[in-house]
Amino acid sequence: MNLKFLIEGEEETGGEHIESYVSSKPARLKSDAAVICDTEMFAPELPTICVGLRGIVYAELHVEGANHDLHSGIYGGAAPNPMQAIAEILTALKDRNGRILIPGFYDRVVPPSAKEREAWARLPFDEAEYTHKEMGAKELVGEPEIPLLERLWARPTLEVHGIRGGFTGEGAKTVIPARAVAKISTRLVADQRPDEAAAQLKEAVRRATPKGVTAELKLIHSAAPSLVNPDNPFVRAAAEAMSEAFGKETVYIRSGGSIPIVGSFDQSLGIPSVMLGFGLPDDNLHAPNEKLHLPNFYRGIEAVAHYLEKLGR
Amino acid sequence: MNLKFLIEGEEETGGEHIESYVSSKPARLKSDAAVICDTEMFAPELPTICVGLRGIVYAELHVEGANHDLHSGIYGGAAPNPMQAIAEILTALKDRNGRILIPGFYDRVVPPSAKEREAWARLPFDEAEYTHKEMGAKELVGEPEIPLLERLWARPTLEVHGIRGGFTGEGAKTVIPARAVAKISTRLVADQRPDEAAAQLKEAVRRATPKGVTAELKLIHSAAPSLVNPDNPFVRAAAEAMSEAFGKETVYIRSGGSIPIVGSFDQSLGIPSVMLGFGLPDDNLHAPNEKLHLPNFYRGIEAVAHYLEKLGR
Repeated sequence: MNLKFLIEGEEETGGEHIESYVSSKPARLKSDAAVICDTEMFAPELPTICVGLRGIVYAELHVEGANHDLHSGIYGGAAPNPMQAIAEILTALKDRNGRILIPGFYDRVVPPSAKEREAWARLPFDEAEYTHKEMGAKELVGEPEIPLLERLWARPTLEVHGIRGGFTGEGAKTVIPARAVAKISTRLVADQRPDEAAAQLKEAVRRATPKGVTAELKLIHSAAPSLVNPDNPFVRAAAEAMSEAFGKETVYIRSGGSIPIVGSFDQSLGIPSVMLGFGLPDDNLHAPNEKLHLPNFYRGIEAVAHYLEKLGR
Repeated sequence: MNLKFLIEGEEETGGEHIESYVSSKPARLKSDAAVICDTEMFAPELPTICVGLRGIVYAELHVEGANHDLHSGIYGGAAPNPMQAIAEILTALKDRNGRILIPGFYDRVVPPSAKEREAWARLPFDEAEYTHKEMGAKELVGEPEIPLLERLWARPTLEVHGIRGGFTGEGAKTVIPARAVAKISTRLVADQRPDEAAAQLKEAVRRATPKGVTAELKLIHSAAPSLVNPDNPFVRAAAEAMSEAFGKETVYIRSGGSIPIVGSFDQSLGIPSVMLGFGLPDDNLHAPNEKLHLPNFYRGIEAVAHYLEKLGR
């Protein structure tokens, strides 16, 4: 077995440089498959292979009204309010059922196969525990007619992450802000294309922009969605290795997150990515008290050892 | 003439203490009328008396979803987003024409008299200069069927001043925030009542709150709208004094802003407030580079001298 290690430290901020590195070094990185350990086990003790990822388009929505902050007493009733405009644009882009209202956005969305849907329905899953304990929410939202795992793994989303501008301190300031910026992103699923999705989003923002303000969408980064064939021999061997390490049959899932390098390996090197995941759903990813379950660290080492042995044979 | 000076340093942050001071000292503050210099001249060199003010209800809208921040890849499609919820609530409270959608909100709104409307239409006003130079905006917004000055002086508004929460820094963080807070306020006009308006707003927020989140409206401060009769002798004398100082006929306007003490003088002391204003529309109130035009400072001294002389006679 020949192993090549590729170490990436920018993934959480968009992975700006690794893509050009991978695309410029096809000979050096030549290989049969890539192995990535950045996904989750579906449940503790349940060996899991991830065979699908959502893509992403991350952008800033810059909105401007007057050229300076205005007093809401003197000008309220006449002055455009960029922050209200952001609210109007956001609600024009997505309805209260989580349905994205951007024209054409669902045209390329490929639904999961009947076989995949059945397998997902058999996964051990306690929706009440997921909702109240893991998320600490009172209820779930999203497209009501679509099963939860399909919403998370096989449907695009649109989220607002923060809105900058105006006055947010203690007390009361009656300002109509001159400008405001919303951080937004959309998750993409196969076969959506980031460039096309970004263009559709841009056009939808243009149409949704209310009177009195100008709005500009600035792209921050994007990544294509990806699907790996579970019948690929490198994926099958990984599933067997996981089963041996954990003593249970391996399940196939997708992830709602984005790992942009999977798309680069596919496009630049023509190789599949095998996603062996050892995270757990309560790891608090990207949040306070993020953790890694230590037993999974050691079981992961075992699983990788089994895997290499199998591939070597 | 006996003069009593009442000096207030908290007005811009809600004037928490002066109201209780005024209501607890009616004997000490006993007088025929109050004079307040906190309003604007309609145009440079144009002597102006303000005879109406809007009231205000200022509040924070606190919205909570999950009990910790969530990753939009893993949870997007199922997790409630408090910031999107704020956008949904704001757009449910006001339409794109500036019409407030809170049930009953306009029930007590008294339209200006035909005489007042005619006088306002005669005021020297260049809408293009107001829009492009004074405000630096590309166009005006607000209820299209209502004349501009009436929108500013005699119609309630609802504005969002800032939204706190999530991620607003440089770069990309794909967080679904656990909570978000919007600073909002509504300007009130005669005969709206702050307590009733706050209750209507609260109920409208309750109805507009989407699935998956809890929303709470916390009141910060409020003030009643006020109208002064222009035929009051103290107002008439002020108008004459202004005309003498500036050499022109005094115009009567209203202001869209709120001066809570005017309501207290009326309710606690039973006296009218004479609003002699020396500010100018381009003074950048509550904004960077706020200023006072010095000639108006000196003309103002003259006008007050004329006024005291007239009243003494």
